[in-house]
Amino acid sequence: MTSNDALLDTRLEDLAGLLGKGGLLTAAEDMERYRVDWPGYRGALPLAVARPATTQQVADVVGYCHRHDIPLVPQGGHSGLVGGALPDAETPELVLSLERLATIRDVDPINFTMSVDAGCVLQSIKDAAAEADCDFPLSLGAQGSCQIGGNISTNAGGLNVLRYGMMRQLVLGLEVVLPDGRIYNGMKALHKNNTGYDLKQLFIGAEGTLGVVTGAVLKLSPRAQTTRSALLACPDVDAVLGLYALARRRCCDLLTAFELVPRTCLELALEAAPDLRDPLETPSPVYVLMEVAASGPIDLDTMIEGLFEQGLEAGLLSDGVLAGSDAQAESLWRIREAMLEGQRNRGEHLRTDVALPISSLGEFHARASQEILALSPEATIIAYGHIGDGNLHFNILPPPGLETEARTTLLHELEERLFEIVTEFDGSISAEHGIGRFKQAAFLERLSEPEFDLMRGLKYLLDPRSLLSPGRILPRPGD
Amino acid sequence: MTSNDALLDTRLEDLAGLLGKGGLLTAAEDMERYRVDWPGYRGALPLAVARPATTQQVADVVGYCHRHDIPLVPQGGHSGLVGGALPDAETPELVLSLERLATIRDVDPINFTMSVDAGCVLQSIKDAAAEADCDFPLSLGAQGSCQIGGNISTNAGGLNVLRYGMMRQLVLGLEVVLPDGRIYNGMKALHKNNTGYDLKQLFIGAEGTLGVVTGAVLKLSPRAQTTRSALLACPDVDAVLGLYALARRRCCDLLTAFELVPRTCLELALEAAPDLRDPLETPSPVYVLMEVAASGPIDLDTMIEGLFEQGLEAGLLSDGVLAGSDAQAESLWRIREAMLEGQRNRGEHLRTDVALPISSLGEFHARASQEILALSPEATIIAYGHIGDGNLHFNILPPPGLETEARTTLLHELEERLFEIVTEFDGSISAEHGIGRFKQAAFLERLSEPEFDLMRGLKYLLDPRSLLSPGRILPRPGD
Repeated sequence: MTSNDALLDTRLEDLAGLLGKGGLLTAAEDMERYRVDWPGYRGALPLAVARPATTQQVADVVGYCHRHDIPLVPQGGHSGLVGGALPDAETPELVLSLERLATIRDVDPINFTMSVDAGCVLQSIKDAAAEADCDFPLSLGAQGSCQIGGNISTNAGGLNVLRYGMMRQLVLGLEVVLPDGRIYNGMKALHKNNTGYDLKQLFIGAEGTLGVVTGAVLKLSPRAQTTRSALLACPDVDAVLGLYALARRRCCDLLTAFELVPRTCLELALEAAPDLRDPLETPSPVYVLMEVAASGPIDLDTMIEGLFEQGLEAGLLSDGVLAGSDAQAESLWRIREAMLEGQRNRGEHLRTDVALPISSLGEFHARASQEILALSPEATIIAYGHIGDGNLHFNILPPPGLETEARTTLLHELEERLFEIVTEFDGSISAEHGIGRFKQAAFLERLSEPEFDLMRGLKYLLDPRSLLSPGRILPRPGD
Repeated sequence: MTSNDALLDTRLEDLAGLLGKGGLLTAAEDMERYRVDWPGYRGALPLAVARPATTQQVADVVGYCHRHDIPLVPQGGHSGLVGGALPDAETPELVLSLERLATIRDVDPINFTMSVDAGCVLQSIKDAAAEADCDFPLSLGAQGSCQIGGNISTNAGGLNVLRYGMMRQLVLGLEVVLPDGRIYNGMKALHKNNTGYDLKQLFIGAEGTLGVVTGAVLKLSPRAQTTRSALLACPDVDAVLGLYALARRRCCDLLTAFELVPRTCLELALEAAPDLRDPLETPSPVYVLMEVAASGPIDLDTMIEGLFEQGLEAGLLSDGVLAGSDAQAESLWRIREAMLEGQRNRGEHLRTDVALPISSLGEFHARASQEILALSPEATIIAYGHIGDGNLHFNILPPPGLETEARTTLLHELEERLFEIVTEFDGSISAEHGIGRFKQAAFLERLSEPEFDLMRGLKYLLDPRSLLSPGRILPRPGD
């Protein structure tokens, strides 16, 4: 036994003492599930996994790590897409899992707020809101497993951003354990509060690099009583944009989703789910999958029918189907799920998450498609996304039959070219997934000097020893 | 001529050179209007008034001041209520007026965005939005004179926060001159962008202490086609809260304003504007002035009538009037303006701007009224405000006939007691006005150690020499 091992043992004993029975996992088999995330990436074996059950225990662990120079990485529900929460391979890290901090502290249906622990699973928050005749509108594929602390730390987006904003817009108060182990208590259930710098903004979207979110006050909405979905067939992406501008106006602020689905995606969906049927008789180059929702008595059918007629007259759409029942609406939305499944079935491919000004989407789509196909004529482009947010998942399936190495190289080249075009259009290389590890190089390349200085300054202000999620978003100080 | 005077002359000559003809004002009579603000407070004579016409000129001036240790204070439209933009008396400051930086750079009705210079007057932004069939929803009494840079720096609120959020929610991109004179260009017209720390959040609501906002990309909404207003009579504040919870649901997300107007305020309005008439036959203890707006074809009359009937059945209201025309709606909203006028006519009084959880408003109102009247039985309480935001202007008219000094002392005591009750209810002493100078003492008293350390750290990170709006929000380093 080396003195290093002995030191580590002491540290782990101390941490176990702080956390009580079941609070610290150290056996490799127990730690396995904290190394992997939903997309299938695998991190290194962590030093240990700390599972605090109270905010005070989080503070105790973080403070201990601060005093003894132990790097640590907070973890939510393992559904991140940029590798930010995976334990590091270079320097062994302590995983700080928030999963036992999972109490809904309070629901207030008159104030339209809910106070929660960071480890609450998103779906349980949505359920608790519904019980109080409210909605918590954040809506993600991973909502059955992702945790609200992770949603906050990554400023999550999802399907209903168009109407309700990103996670940042849904947070009224925040409780954070600072990297030195002190607790910042900003758990105020206030809709307005202009007292000094708005500190909570620092931690939202910081991907766990500036503090550990342990609790939040969330903003709720009235619960939707009626929801209507429709699939509309459009001649091209420009028509989709025109239809969007029309729908925003005609559907008032009741539009909850406005998704672009190209024909390729519909076909992928039909391929992946043989029970699905093409809802329209004639194929169309692109479709819009839209939803409106109201918490009071409004005739949404008439609203969508009016939009359909006006869109038809203006040549912005050629056909469409309005779901007449919840079951029909569900089968329309199953297209969107099945197309993701179909995409996964095709094996390794390039997944992106770019944002553009909505008005540039048509030109960007044409230009990017042309350039990508010029570089790789047999690639398949599947560009779908949240039109109302200017957020396009411009994904690329590589030509079939490529060997692993050639495929990886090609996809990387295509990504670089795509990102260059995004930058020319004044867009963002990450609309909602964040930077983590995987997007760091492309992110840093595009950062101006003042931006880099300010970000590095913030990191140093909060975490001068760089112990919290080191190397995510920004490189480690020495790198 | 002392050497100090000579040095100052050199500095002013340099600054005049950077700004060109008309860019620097130094004559006392020219500077007079930069010393006063709308509430009538008067600051010291500034060193000079710099009026840059471009972002680069702002950067030149700020950079020059940085190199030569000259304190400066950015100014918008002089309608702040906490004295933040008035030139300081202790250390003479350079006023940096943004008034010549007033170009609307771009309006994009498909992206629902507008790019503007910081000196644009709010009303001109609202007009340009309307021309493009959009709304810029920020709505304030001062909109004819306040500038968007000031609105951003103070995170302005106003009448429609309930539906559209504070200024923070309406900013997508920001251009800021940093205290060292460098330009941070974050003018992206993107609805989603998760690339690193969201730097623009630092400057929104920072009251000009961390940088000078020079431009912004604003988020627009579809333009309202139909608007309906109503005045509803309620038995008490608790009934108003019940009615609010009902209205949020029945009116979907179309509710734009929900204002509490107590009988005292209606009477003040009738006193100030003799042409106004009480819209209802029987007096009621409290009223709600509400508005709904839709950008598409929705029957708002039926919506409000339905709310009225349901409220009547539930005993939440006793009477009401729905404005049948724009003129009628206007006369309802004139009540709100006239009551402010009536309040001003009563001379010096205590104006506050507190926020509470909406569900606590009834209990807070009762408790605060009781305690204030126990301290000063002849005082008159006028507590009105934005119920939907939990934002109460709990104002107090002193007993008539008090001498100036006794009045000031009493109002200060009443404010201290009121703020103590706000704190007991976990509220905020400033919902929208900010801290500036006037609220600093009460603000600092309530700040926890981690909050103070973080705020001081942010100030030091951005402005280590404390040259930008020194002494606002936080005390100067030595104080």
